[in-house]
Amino acid sequence: MKTYLAFLILAAGVAAAADDGAEIRKVLLTQQDLWNAGDTKGFTAFYTEDTKFVSTSVQRGRKQVEERYARKYPNKGAMGKLTFDELEITKLGKDYASVIGRWKLDRSEAAGGNVGGYYTLLLKRTKQGWRIILDHTS
Amino acid sequence: MKTYLAFLILAAGVAAAADDGAEIRKVLLTQQDLWNAGDTKGFTAFYTEDTKFVSTSVQRGRKQVEERYARKYPNKGAMGKLTFDELEITKLGKDYASVIGRWKLDRSEAAGGNVGGYYTLLLKRTKQGWRIILDHTS
Repeated sequence: MKTYLAFLILAAGVAAAADDGAEIRKVLLTQQDLWNAGDTKGFTAFYTEDTKFVSTSVQRGRKQVEERYARKYPNKGAMGKLTFDELEITKLGKDYASVIGRWKLDRSEAAGGNVGGYYTLLLKRTKQGWRIILDHTS
Repeated sequence: MKTYLAFLILAAGVAAAADDGAEIRKVLLTQQDLWNAGDTKGFTAFYTEDTKFVSTSVQRGRKQVEERYARKYPNKGAMGKLTFDELEITKLGKDYASVIGRWKLDRSEAAGGNVGGYYTLLLKRTKQGWRIILDHTS
């Protein structure tokens, strides 16, 4: 009986972790679709008021991140077609997770040409679902 | 009595979190000193066998990280004088923490001149102390 219970609890834990991975992947793929629809505001809705965005400088909070994107990618041509790739999702305890991924923008030469690189995210479980609290993009 | 106990538990929690922050800061300052002593092996001893190091590519494991540093900074001149600055340490649950920091290498012009940028670390509590499991440097 004890073994059976332990198995059930373990199985539930494994299932929950698998669900978390699937949910986090869904957040990222939703972001990808929103970006490709030209929706910077929707894209940054998965960041929080406390998000830190690290690149060549540090931005703080969803609003600053949105403004940075609007500045760097002012129109659909500059935004190009975004693909997230090679996602590695790692749970960190119950309520946090890290993601390493590759980003790629396919763009016309006139719009600046193709760009890409790696990013690292830190996500936190919130009542609204998984949210990005840290983003380091290079 | 209950209030008193709750207070003790809360106080212990706050003290533990403060200790964690101090220990993590000590790891980073120790790394800074080891780097400035030309000790790349000592510097990378705070990474683990599972560490992911993200920059323009992804390195995996302490050994690969050490080899990358040895390649990029082959002598004391190239290593320069390292300073870590603007450290922001955030606990993520009990056993994980993130750090945002600024790195700076003061070097002679002949050795490539000054360089610097931001890094994001993810640390995990281990039996040996806090260890870096993810490093994104740009």
